[in-house]
Amino acid sequence: MIGIGVIGYGYWGPNLARVVTETEGCSIAAIADQSADALGRAHKRHPTARLAGDWQDLVNDPRVDAVMVATPVSTHFDIALAALRAGKHVFVEKPITETAAQAEILLEEAAHRGLTLMVDHTFVYTGAVQTIHDMIDSGALGDLYYYDSTRINLGLFQRDVNVLWDLAVHDLAILDFILPAEPMAVSASGVGHFPGSPENMAQLTIFFAGGAIAHLNVNWLAPVKIRQTLIGGSRKMIVYDDLQTSEKIKIYDRGVNLASDPEEVRKVMVSYRMGDMTSPQVSVKEALLTEIEHFVQCIEAKTRPVTDGASGLRVVKMLEAASLSMRQRGQPIDLVKLRRAS
Amino acid sequence: MIGIGVIGYGYWGPNLARVVTETEGCSIAAIADQSADALGRAHKRHPTARLAGDWQDLVNDPRVDAVMVATPVSTHFDIALAALRAGKHVFVEKPITETAAQAEILLEEAAHRGLTLMVDHTFVYTGAVQTIHDMIDSGALGDLYYYDSTRINLGLFQRDVNVLWDLAVHDLAILDFILPAEPMAVSASGVGHFPGSPENMAQLTIFFAGGAIAHLNVNWLAPVKIRQTLIGGSRKMIVYDDLQTSEKIKIYDRGVNLASDPEEVRKVMVSYRMGDMTSPQVSVKEALLTEIEHFVQCIEAKTRPVTDGASGLRVVKMLEAASLSMRQRGQPIDLVKLRRAS
Amino acid sequence: MIGIGVIGYGYWGPNLARVVTETEGCSIAAIADQSADALGRAHKRHPTARLAGDWQDLVNDPRVDAVMVATPVSTHFDIALAALRAGKHVFVEKPITETAAQAEILLEEAAHRGLTLMVDHTFVYTGAVQTIHDMIDSGALGDLYYYDSTRINLGLFQRDVNVLWDLAVHDLAILDFILPAEPMAVSASGVGHFPGSPENMAQLTIFFAGGAIAHLNVNWLAPVKIRQTLIGGSRKMIVYDDLQTSEKIKIYDRGVNLASDPEEVRKVMVSYRMGDMTSPQVSVKEALLTEIEHFVQCIEAKTRPVTDGASGLRVVKMLEAASLSMRQRGQPIDLVKLRRAS
Amino acid sequence: MIGIGVIGYGYWGPNLARVVTETEGCSIAAIADQSADALGRAHKRHPTARLAGDWQDLVNDPRVDAVMVATPVSTHFDIALAALRAGKHVFVEKPITETAAQAEILLEEAAHRGLTLMVDHTFVYTGAVQTIHDMIDSGALGDLYYYDSTRINLGLFQRDVNVLWDLAVHDLAILDFILPAEPMAVSASGVGHFPGSPENMAQLTIFFAGGAIAHLNVNWLAPVKIRQTLIGGSRKMIVYDDLQTSEKIKIYDRGVNLASDPEEVRKVMVSYRMGDMTSPQVSVKEALLTEIEHFVQCIEAKTRPVTDGASGLRVVKMLEAASLSMRQRGQPIDLVKLRRAS
Repeated sequence: MIGIGVIGYGYWGPNLARVVTETEGCSIAAIADQSADALGRAHKRHPTARLAGDWQDLVNDPRVDAVMVATPVSTHFDIALAALRAGKHVFVEKPITETAAQAEILLEEAAHRGLTLMVDHTFVYTGAVQTIHDMIDSGALGDLYYYDSTRINLGLFQRDVNVLWDLAVHDLAILDFILPAEPMAVSASGVGHFPGSPENMAQLTIFFAGGAIAHLNVNWLAPVKIRQTLIGGSRKMIVYDDLQTSEKIKIYDRGVNLASDPEEVRKVMVSYRMGDMTSPQVSVKEALLTEIEHFVQCIEAKTRPVTDGASGLRVVKMLEAASLSMRQRGQPIDLVKLRRAS
Repeated sequence: MIGIGVIGYGYWGPNLARVVTETEGCSIAAIADQSADALGRAHKRHPTARLAGDWQDLVNDPRVDAVMVATPVSTHFDIALAALRAGKHVFVEKPITETAAQAEILLEEAAHRGLTLMVDHTFVYTGAVQTIHDMIDSGALGDLYYYDSTRINLGLFQRDVNVLWDLAVHDLAILDFILPAEPMAVSASGVGHFPGSPENMAQLTIFFAGGAIAHLNVNWLAPVKIRQTLIGGSRKMIVYDDLQTSEKIKIYDRGVNLASDPEEVRKVMVSYRMGDMTSPQVSVKEALLTEIEHFVQCIEAKTRPVTDGASGLRVVKMLEAASLSMRQRGQPIDLVKLRRAS
Repeated sequence: MIGIGVIGYGYWGPNLARVVTETEGCSIAAIADQSADALGRAHKRHPTARLAGDWQDLVNDPRVDAVMVATPVSTHFDIALAALRAGKHVFVEKPITETAAQAEILLEEAAHRGLTLMVDHTFVYTGAVQTIHDMIDSGALGDLYYYDSTRINLGLFQRDVNVLWDLAVHDLAILDFILPAEPMAVSASGVGHFPGSPENMAQLTIFFAGGAIAHLNVNWLAPVKIRQTLIGGSRKMIVYDDLQTSEKIKIYDRGVNLASDPEEVRKVMVSYRMGDMTSPQVSVKEALLTEIEHFVQCIEAKTRPVTDGASGLRVVKMLEAASLSMRQRGQPIDLVKLRRAS
Repeated sequence: MIGIGVIGYGYWGPNLARVVTETEGCSIAAIADQSADALGRAHKRHPTARLAGDWQDLVNDPRVDAVMVATPVSTHFDIALAALRAGKHVFVEKPITETAAQAEILLEEAAHRGLTLMVDHTFVYTGAVQTIHDMIDSGALGDLYYYDSTRINLGLFQRDVNVLWDLAVHDLAILDFILPAEPMAVSASGVGHFPGSPENMAQLTIFFAGGAIAHLNVNWLAPVKIRQTLIGGSRKMIVYDDLQTSEKIKIYDRGVNLASDPEEVRKVMVSYRMGDMTSPQVSVKEALLTEIEHFVQCIEAKTRPVTDGASGLRVVKMLEAASLSMRQRGQPIDLVKLRRAS
């Protein structure tokens, strides 16, 4: 039985703690939060867990085998590093750290000590994204043309990170999972509508080797919540609407075929394929449960998580490059050069 | 009674001809198309109109007072110029011409001869866009933060223009009408998925003086049709879904307020306003009817159309700048410099 | 070339006339309406058609081979009978007549003279209803459990008929086409909210031989327009939403299986099948065009239309029985007894 | 601190237990279920609660002040009666009992002993239904014309009750809360598609004094889940879609006005009002939390709950009458006579 310590019992921590109680092979050993109110709520729901106002206490608690970090991004590095050094496995909220340099240090520390380091890229563990992954992987989608995602809603404005780090991070994590192609360049533009506040609205384009393109539209200042992703392939196209309770994934047998005969090209250029739409049943198991089960299994079997520290690092590198482009109104950033330089 | 000659009886021409028959003060005098089939269809619906295989015949026909040009973009300039030189008023499909230079020649010719030159920016004449315009104009929306539009569907692939010229042109026309602020820079990225074919998917960001931003997402290769625009202001926010038959416009009393007290800022940064949503009744009169009535009135009263040649020119200039940026993966184009240079 | 005379140029007549001009093998010979305004509009759109203020003129016009009746229900019988007696083929708006007795007279007259009598059950000619028909006919749906339709909107209040005759008639026509089972009984309830005005809201249940049930919910006083039909079968289930521009038909591989083992029955009773959903491409050809082509073909080939006078009669009989039940708050009407009595 | 005993830890019991832990003034004292698995899950989430395989143990437990009954309907009466006789306050799932006679016995027992008897009509405590109630109560809706509800989905088939008792009960509870008018008659029709199984699909019409009508459409065999209610009034109309996460309630300023001038009546009959739609923010507080807080307050203040035993009784009486009508294919049941007879 793996004893879990949850650090941070604000918005996401209670979900982590609840799911730990529903997962075989682990249990809640301790919960830490600076706020006495938060600890009071934690006690009501988890009356047998040790409570702590200081996260250091958890890191040093021998009943804690693994630490889950659900605190603000700016504290991820210090907490995760201390936990690893204390010999604890670590599960960190996305994004894994504030900088790529920090993530690299965590990776090294975990590798050196043989500990599991996992980043909470929750969407990777949904039935919907698993279905998309399998369709790309099996070739059912054909050549991937594009990934186009709208992820907008009202708030929560973050103090320490811009909207890319809060919302686009989800799509970058999904892309890191489903898309084998290498990203070549990124262009981002965005704006902060409030002086002294980070960018609250942004668009981001990633150019991949082979011609695929990803486009992300994120916004903290939208009147409605939208979570819609279109994925275009040469054989099929997908519309993925995460807010639907059923029919989250719709697969369209639609597309175009370039005319091959030059004479025909002159006249029609492309012919259209307008076939049926199918919405497959996808697993409705809670993604966080799948994910924490995976964390437990990786610890026990000493295997590498799907969303390991390295995937966390790749996502942070993309966020850094996109933020750089955004400060220059879309100036493209050459990721190949960056990779060579590092 | 103004005699109208319609040139081009393919996709859009039949709509122009039909609406002319429903408009007071004008009638269909003649229809031109290269295709005998098209002329056959034209005759069945408009048995009293003169038919011509060559558009020059219409331009020289004394029964024709005004010409409507519904041919491919590449032919707009030649036809419109010839018509103006023959003393006809001209109504041209969007975009007005292939280049800004061409549009400027048309403007001069029309001004010189005292003829009406109008571009068919149809959306400007919809009840929905009129409502949005009035809300911005009256201050009901507050400061404009952003205009974010998704305009995607499957096809029709164009041979002679990229997707910006076919789809983004609608949003640029709307922006030209509703937004008084000056555009300062543009960044666009996109891709053509088929060799030898123009870009079929693009995103475009426009930075306006005063901090507003426009973001356009256009795509010819989407499995579903979406026409959704979000408009964010400091007092209200709008969701405009043109595919809804009712409730096209939804106005949300939502937003954020920056905390002014520095202590409070440290804690919450912004407070949220989550008020009611209202969907006003908007006029359901056919936009094209409103537009052609306006064309007739402008001819009769010798007044300037809302979507005159100058608005057509501004839109083409933006399309040129965006295409330039797109060829450089989002490299921002400084529109202020461009304006000074010209 | 069959010469068509359209009687009634109000709401539906202009559609009939337009589609006649788009149909091979027929043309508009004449249009009749009591209103001078309506005739003015008719002339603008059909400058070569003969105009008449009195429908008798059309019935006696030798250029008219077939008459289309798009007048109020109360006038259908007189006009159709006169037209048949004058040797004209007849196409009548739904419902075919005000009473079953009238419909029977028309049927006899048409049969006696060898003329085509067709009722305008438009939905039967849509791609969606054809798809549903074929799924039931081929057995793909399995045993039919139910047909459940909601057909509501605001207005138009009719003066001479209740809401069943205006809205439920569409579903009764569809049921007559797709469902081979015999109706056994009907129960209807409804209310007129305005004194002196017919029922504006009603529900209707039809019990079919074999256990299938139809439920129709119709309402002239709903704030929103809904056209949604669920069709449940033992193998598949359909959701048909006529207001969708795409994906009108969704086919669900869902259902239940009764446990056969008595022990199992005690525990779970049914097991569920939750398979994929598929939305087939259905023909988007205008139903009215398909229908009028069919009318022309039936005249030329002297064949019986799918929606012949007999189907019009069956629908009117059901409307009569339902109205009778509705006046008695749902008192069931035994249709088998009624059939024996007649 | 009121000690709560939850009897039945299957589908709904865990929600009751969770919300008790979130409610001030009460705590989970004990949980009973026949299933060892269920008790195991209960222990994991509520490690300090007493567990029992026999509900009698809870009824006799002095730490238990109030009992919540979340067992099959057929057991409600025995458990609730035993609990009242043991001096416990009682909160029972809907429907309160299997028969009106049973409910009357519970009411008497609770009144006699001065105990709180409450039925879990959860929807009454939602922000949406509270908003509807207030609009009717304040006169904002005008005269109520109708309540039309569709409540359908796939499963769960019940063994011991038909679909009216499982699904229509929700609407009857809402109607009991929002509608002051007296029900006069009811007509219901339905069918069981599986031999030996109760009716799985039904429609129900209730005629109220004053002319309002309620229509309920319930179905266990629908491929999709729908929870949509239209409420028509003379001044406003409401569409309430409980599956929407935002905009659950839409209020339409639409309707018709009967022409008063007889001459005008002849021509147009009604004029239409097509005003704006407004979607108010409604409370998103969990209904069950509001409800259990109310239960605790009623116990403490010895006041009558909004959904007291009497409302549970009225709902059961309606279910009995509707089931009677349904067995006779819609034969209307005169509720006034029934009331006089009892």
